[in-house]
Amino acid sequence: MNERMGPVGHKRWVIADGYIPPASTGASRPLLSHDAICILNCGNEDAHIHITIFFSDRKPAGPYHITVNESRTRHVRFNELTDPEPVPHDTDYASMIESDVPIVVQHTRLDSRQSALALMTTIAYPA
Amino acid sequence: MNERMGPVGHKRWVIADGYIPPASTGASRPLLSHDAICILNCGNEDAHIHITIFFSDRKPAGPYHITVNESRTRHVRFNELTDPEPVPHDTDYASMIESDVPIVVQHTRLDSRQSALALMTTIAYPA
Amino acid sequence: MNERMGPVGHKRWVIADGYIPPASTGASRPLLSHDAICILNCGNEDAHIHITIFFSDRKPAGPYHITVNESRTRHVRFNELTDPEPVPHDTDYASMIESDVPIVVQHTRLDSRQSALALMTTIAYPA
Amino acid sequence: MNERMGPVGHKRWVIADGYIPPASTGASRPLLSHDAICILNCGNEDAHIHITIFFSDRKPAGPYHITVNESRTRHVRFNELTDPEPVPHDTDYASMIESDVPIVVQHTRLDSRQSALALMTTIAYPA
Repeated sequence: MNERMGPVGHKRWVIADGYIPPASTGASRPLLSHDAICILNCGNEDAHIHITIFFSDRKPAGPYHITVNESRTRHVRFNELTDPEPVPHDTDYASMIESDVPIVVQHTRLDSRQSALALMTTIAYPA
Repeated sequence: MNERMGPVGHKRWVIADGYIPPASTGASRPLLSHDAICILNCGNEDAHIHITIFFSDRKPAGPYHITVNESRTRHVRFNELTDPEPVPHDTDYASMIESDVPIVVQHTRLDSRQSALALMTTIAYPA
Repeated sequence: MNERMGPVGHKRWVIADGYIPPASTGASRPLLSHDAICILNCGNEDAHIHITIFFSDRKPAGPYHITVNESRTRHVRFNELTDPEPVPHDTDYASMIESDVPIVVQHTRLDSRQSALALMTTIAYPA
Repeated sequence: MNERMGPVGHKRWVIADGYIPPASTGASRPLLSHDAICILNCGNEDAHIHITIFFSDRKPAGPYHITVNESRTRHVRFNELTDPEPVPHDTDYASMIESDVPIVVQHTRLDSRQSALALMTTIAYPA
């Protein structure tokens, strides 16, 4: 159905609540506490994406560069970003996601600090 | 009140964060881990819906066909879709939901991998 | 600040995922499993609201009538609606909320079936 | 990238579901039950923000004044607001957030009343 579709999504998205829980009860990667952006690029061109991280008490970090190929999704954990610098744990942040083609962004956190995991999600804010 | 209403909703919706947790602590269907779309068709015509599933490393799957009758809701679990193929568990995906009449779509996941269930929900992105 | 404000919100909202968990581990009202709509009427006129409940296999129920006074909020649990009929537990439903003045609606569920509660929330869909 | 950006966000946001859980199993600040607004000001001017709290049975409280500097985020817990008065715990409320420059607001609650924490989040309603 992609051939018939016009652009789907926006080129700029904002997540105001960023936080990486500093501990986990799960040992495997799926159950590790994480803060993630899930990106869908359902267009016909690869998406080249810049992420900027904002803090409460210092200048923004980034840009972090990621690519999401055409007709693909990518779920990116902030805790696995390393270039130009890791995102600190146990620290309030926010993020802006900018793409050269329209994408859709959803924000999801898994927090397994205590004996059972917690989840939260929201479609990000299309800016 | 339906007679007075114009169309309610959109014909195309996107969920960027798809994931079916691969285990459950609950044994009954209500407490099984699941990833679901909840659809409301509050119009006067049945909605014929196509779902496309996007992955990180392969071509999209689908379309999956479902119908939601007029003035009805249907809560569909991705883990119960089988035609043209099951949706893999423990795998990142995203989905696009396309309907011939306006509908409203909400995304909800129940994750009961650990000792107590977790929930998350968001209105999907109207594309 | 209300004097300076134009209308805030919409007159029609949709929640596609309705579900009242059929059990609770908490005994007190705050910890009872519930599915709720939180309504803010920040205008200068009382809001007269009709709620319609949609099901998967029968005609819609309602309207349920509630009033939210001007400059007030009201958090209404679907499990406490009784007129014209109770909303069934352990049953998929959806809801439409219609008001004579603009309001804002947020959907929240607390599920305490297992040993620790789960929460989910989303701003409802402004239709 | 901020130089190239036009205004990002809205000047008025609404959260209809406000609630501060009255107990916690976690003793440290990160695990204390809380209800929070996460604000991103990615513009070039400081944001001067007024928060108004609405109740079910009394006049609104506020305004509460906070500032979010340019290119900064601030995550504010309702339970830490004290001026002009604390926000009561175990009480239904709603809030309106008004800024002199565009911002983005996300609502998040952490509830650790029972043996494992629960989380919920949503982008607030841009009014």
